[in-house]
Amino acid sequence: MNPDICKERDSATFQTELLTNILDGGADKTARRREIELLVINDPDFQHEDLNFLSRSDRYDAAVKKSSMMIMKMRQHGISDPEEIMCYKSCVHRGRPEPLDLHLGMFLPTLLNQATAEQQDHFFMQAWNLEIIGTYAQTEMGHGTHIRGLETTATYDPSTQEFVLNSPTISSIKWWPGGLGKTSNHAIVLAQLYTQGQCRGLHPFIVPIRAMGTHEPLPGVVVGDIGPKFGFDEVDNGFLKLENVRIPRMNMLMKYSKVAPDGSYVKPPSDKLTYGTMVFIRSMIVGDSARSLSKACTIAIRYSVVRHQSELRQGEPEPQILDYQTQQYKLLPLLATAYAFHCVGQYMTQTYHRITGDISQGDFSQLPELHALSAGLKAFTTWIATAGIEMCRMACGGHGYSRCSGLPDIYVTFTPTCTYEGENTVMMLQTARYLVKCYTQASEGLQVGGTVSYLNEMSQGRLQPQPVSARPTVVDINDLSCLVEAYKQRASRLVELAARSLQGEIQRSKSKEEAWNNTSIDLVRASDAHCHYVVVKLFSAKLSEVGDTAVHSVLSTLALLYALHGISQHTGDFLQAGLLSGPQIYQVSQRLKELLSQLRPNAVALVDAFDYRDEMLNSVLGRYDGNVYENMFEWARQSPLNRTQVHNSFHKYLKPLQSKL
Amino acid sequence: MNPDICKERDSATFQTELLTNILDGGADKTARRREIELLVINDPDFQHEDLNFLSRSDRYDAAVKKSSMMIMKMRQHGISDPEEIMCYKSCVHRGRPEPLDLHLGMFLPTLLNQATAEQQDHFFMQAWNLEIIGTYAQTEMGHGTHIRGLETTATYDPSTQEFVLNSPTISSIKWWPGGLGKTSNHAIVLAQLYTQGQCRGLHPFIVPIRAMGTHEPLPGVVVGDIGPKFGFDEVDNGFLKLENVRIPRMNMLMKYSKVAPDGSYVKPPSDKLTYGTMVFIRSMIVGDSARSLSKACTIAIRYSVVRHQSELRQGEPEPQILDYQTQQYKLLPLLATAYAFHCVGQYMTQTYHRITGDISQGDFSQLPELHALSAGLKAFTTWIATAGIEMCRMACGGHGYSRCSGLPDIYVTFTPTCTYEGENTVMMLQTARYLVKCYTQASEGLQVGGTVSYLNEMSQGRLQPQPVSARPTVVDINDLSCLVEAYKQRASRLVELAARSLQGEIQRSKSKEEAWNNTSIDLVRASDAHCHYVVVKLFSAKLSEVGDTAVHSVLSTLALLYALHGISQHTGDFLQAGLLSGPQIYQVSQRLKELLSQLRPNAVALVDAFDYRDEMLNSVLGRYDGNVYENMFEWARQSPLNRTQVHNSFHKYLKPLQSKL
Repeated sequence: MNPDICKERDSATFQTELLTNILDGGADKTARRREIELLVINDPDFQHEDLNFLSRSDRYDAAVKKSSMMIMKMRQHGISDPEEIMCYKSCVHRGRPEPLDLHLGMFLPTLLNQATAEQQDHFFMQAWNLEIIGTYAQTEMGHGTHIRGLETTATYDPSTQEFVLNSPTISSIKWWPGGLGKTSNHAIVLAQLYTQGQCRGLHPFIVPIRAMGTHEPLPGVVVGDIGPKFGFDEVDNGFLKLENVRIPRMNMLMKYSKVAPDGSYVKPPSDKLTYGTMVFIRSMIVGDSARSLSKACTIAIRYSVVRHQSELRQGEPEPQILDYQTQQYKLLPLLATAYAFHCVGQYMTQTYHRITGDISQGDFSQLPELHALSAGLKAFTTWIATAGIEMCRMACGGHGYSRCSGLPDIYVTFTPTCTYEGENTVMMLQTARYLVKCYTQASEGLQVGGTVSYLNEMSQGRLQPQPVSARPTVVDINDLSCLVEAYKQRASRLVELAARSLQGEIQRSKSKEEAWNNTSIDLVRASDAHCHYVVVKLFSAKLSEVGDTAVHSVLSTLALLYALHGISQHTGDFLQAGLLSGPQIYQVSQRLKELLSQLRPNAVALVDAFDYRDEMLNSVLGRYDGNVYENMFEWARQSPLNRTQVHNSFHKYLKPLQSKL
Repeated sequence: MNPDICKERDSATFQTELLTNILDGGADKTARRREIELLVINDPDFQHEDLNFLSRSDRYDAAVKKSSMMIMKMRQHGISDPEEIMCYKSCVHRGRPEPLDLHLGMFLPTLLNQATAEQQDHFFMQAWNLEIIGTYAQTEMGHGTHIRGLETTATYDPSTQEFVLNSPTISSIKWWPGGLGKTSNHAIVLAQLYTQGQCRGLHPFIVPIRAMGTHEPLPGVVVGDIGPKFGFDEVDNGFLKLENVRIPRMNMLMKYSKVAPDGSYVKPPSDKLTYGTMVFIRSMIVGDSARSLSKACTIAIRYSVVRHQSELRQGEPEPQILDYQTQQYKLLPLLATAYAFHCVGQYMTQTYHRITGDISQGDFSQLPELHALSAGLKAFTTWIATAGIEMCRMACGGHGYSRCSGLPDIYVTFTPTCTYEGENTVMMLQTARYLVKCYTQASEGLQVGGTVSYLNEMSQGRLQPQPVSARPTVVDINDLSCLVEAYKQRASRLVELAARSLQGEIQRSKSKEEAWNNTSIDLVRASDAHCHYVVVKLFSAKLSEVGDTAVHSVLSTLALLYALHGISQHTGDFLQAGLLSGPQIYQVSQRLKELLSQLRPNAVALVDAFDYRDEMLNSVLGRYDGNVYENMFEWARQSPLNRTQVHNSFHKYLKPLQSKL
């Protein structure tokens, strides 16, 4: 064990285990998680090789091998709870995506939710036993977040009682679905349904794409891998071009919509029925933001206490780089952000489960807010975590660029969350649509509830356009509840500004859509401020659940740091709203420095509390024992380029060149 | 040609060629650049294969092949001007780094600058003819930017007239030098010189590391590749561990410092003599920021006019995504930034050449400012360009993640500039040190010159602490010179704040170093504001050189956008300094929207003017002809995973699994 990192742990003011339990949601959950992790780590069948040293084809091969093993073992161990499946899976693949993700996460659930009983009888067991390996093919080359634009067609032919599937254009080729390229033999294809000469909109169809047994593509099916990406090397994201592919009528998932044998069409009873999955996945992504940023912080902070550089005092040994204020300023606000996002992730999961209960009782009333909130928070947290991971990487100096740091992989694995399951800017605008709607309702005197209830207050004591200096300044920058209030006022003001700006545009523009577009910068800003308020509020609320004094104290400091750092990044908003004065902004920056010093001794304990095993971090820089340099040397020596002392290219090119010059 | 992109070009209000000439520095330079590019592109020996489809070893192999060819061909074509070499090289390797970069860019120049005439006689021709292939080994595993901390030792042994080189610890292993792992047979090793029992500090030594002819590592030399990285796949960044390696006395580069046969040491006449290279490279990196961001903007903007998505008006066809205000808000300020950085890059090159003239006359007076400016601007531009490239990538939706977009490669190739040649935060602090020094001089009544001359004004009409609302607001947000003034005032205020904060800390802290550390957040902020001012000023100054009215008009709009966007990102600073009022900040945001609409029709022409050939962009999304989707499909089909219809892993793992479940 590196002595520097030992000292850090000795100086912590709280018990990390207690904090770990809070993050896991209870000591029993921590224990069970560790148990599952050990099941994988101690399993000789899951010996891990360093993927960085393999070609893409070999990485895919290794992943399929592990995934196959994983399915068997999970069934042997009787792991069936979704959370436990996630934990086991994540441990097997060390946090990376894998080729069966969509089979397990989309194909099977969609069958369960959208197939009739008869269809389930037919398909489910085959899919459960992996005779059918499926994916979910929605996105097309030319169509992503705006799903109404999808072009793939499924035309019903009553004469044979079949659907005929086609990709009418290049841009309609299905593109990106995970596991589609090489792994799957079936796909749930989202296509525009045509029957009796009418387009009935998007529907899901089960389409066989490769032959059972031989796995060769079926006639009319052009399928393959979409090529190398920024990360996701283990996954065969694929393309699928359908040329007059015929499937039986019963391959349309008909739990809600139906096509009768004669081609007549029955509409679904509600268009909100498939809403839930989307909301669920976006809520999950908020948790991913927390986890990915936590991993990056763990690596960067541990390395920053092991790494010595430059001098603070002449003649004295080089200090740990975490003793530099600039390094603390990079990393500790991110650490606070990671904790904030954990609170938000837990809240989203709880809220989702609560509302799912309501929905199953036929009560959809909470869904719009959850939908808006999950969209906005997905965007808010993924953007910040993405930038934060890179900040962590660059805070590790040159070694952050080495694959052995683990940071490039965390980045490329995480950054797609900004785009998939709804492009972030579009998500922010969805939230804005909800905010503007609630603003309008509130200003008409209707009560709005949930996280937007502040819009009610506003409609009462409406912010008047008045000079900044004339407004009372009431914020105590050391009082978290005051800061929550300040974030609320800021959100309130920016929602109002955006809504008014929109009203102004509506009077000027040709259409509502144009007015919306002309206001969209303001609308995104309003959503962002709303989400920021929600995060500060939830982090602050979490503190009341913490019993242990020492843990409460350090979490309070983190929450204060999070709130004040956010203000320091958006001083203009708080000044303009008259919420803080110029001198107070200066106090904020001074207070921030104090909080950094205050948190510094707990930095390692705070990342230890995330409790990532070395096997899950995959980082030489982030090793628990801090023995970085010897292990980096060891790792480098295994690099494929070192298999021979002299690379072939010397004999092929350099030596002949020498004789020619 | 895609009709959408044609329309864009037809609607441009200026001739792109004129702007290209400005960027190149004259029509003759444009012509010569294109001539060189064609030399490479039309050369059948430089047929390019897609590196994304190769293993790392094959990528390295392909790069060595090209580099060898390149050396031969450049000599055949008589290309010897440094700028032309850069152009040819960059075209051969399509903008990527290559294994001989350090031989050409560091080893040869260091020989020329720091070897004695006798040493040049001995080494230079061998190196020129690539019998000696060299690299520059400075960075160690545990020591980067703070070079005084380097641990490698070179101990003079007068009995044999040799130096004995050693890597005394793991952390002293040379780590990162490009071309060190497999390519080089010599390295200029920076080591602490010990002679007559005294340490004389860092000196450069020519160390043979591999045998001529066989290329096998020499006795006592442990050398190899440091393993896969985030990008730089073609380069064998290497490690080097030296165990009692003996080299003759004449292998120490002795133009300035000397060790006599008896071991007595002669100091260099000035410690600024090796300063120049560092300043030169940092200045070059500013230009790299401009180029890399320009490439990313070219790809994202072209794709944004080809890509249609969602709907702006019901029932109408999907609009081009560049018609969305949020998309314009992402990309057009970055486009303006790319132009701004081009101006800064040109200025830095000119200034470097001007000052080099002075230096060769023995006049070092301008060097400190250039040194400070190059450090700060290197950090300022690389941070912004790095984030900007990712912004461009994410503005391309899912396809930005595909390697065929070219954007991941631009990012991973560019982002190391934030760390190499001086870690950015350290660079900002170097600039801050200069600013504080000048502030102190100015406040003592001494005149300071160059870009910091505003500190003189400040010391006269010192900003008094007074309420924000009491200060006069004089900025006309449509007048660029007013905005330059506002940026200047902001910089002035932040330098003053930082300097005062430092003075306060010095009174409180144990040492100057500690005070400096406790102020470093403020110091970085001051440097950042100073650099921002310089960039706005240089962009604005460039306009006066532009004769053509149409080009002048569009560049002026870009410069205004750049300046106002920067204000909108730092409203707090401008409000607090009393430079802008709340209502003016609102006007800025409205004006920004107008500027986006105004620039929208010229967006494609403005990226066309960067004049990147498709071969240099390497991007399906950024193709000049806009034919994105058919080419993306074509590219994907060549992916190695598509070489067989059925991947082996099916037979090895999935099929057996099916029978077991």
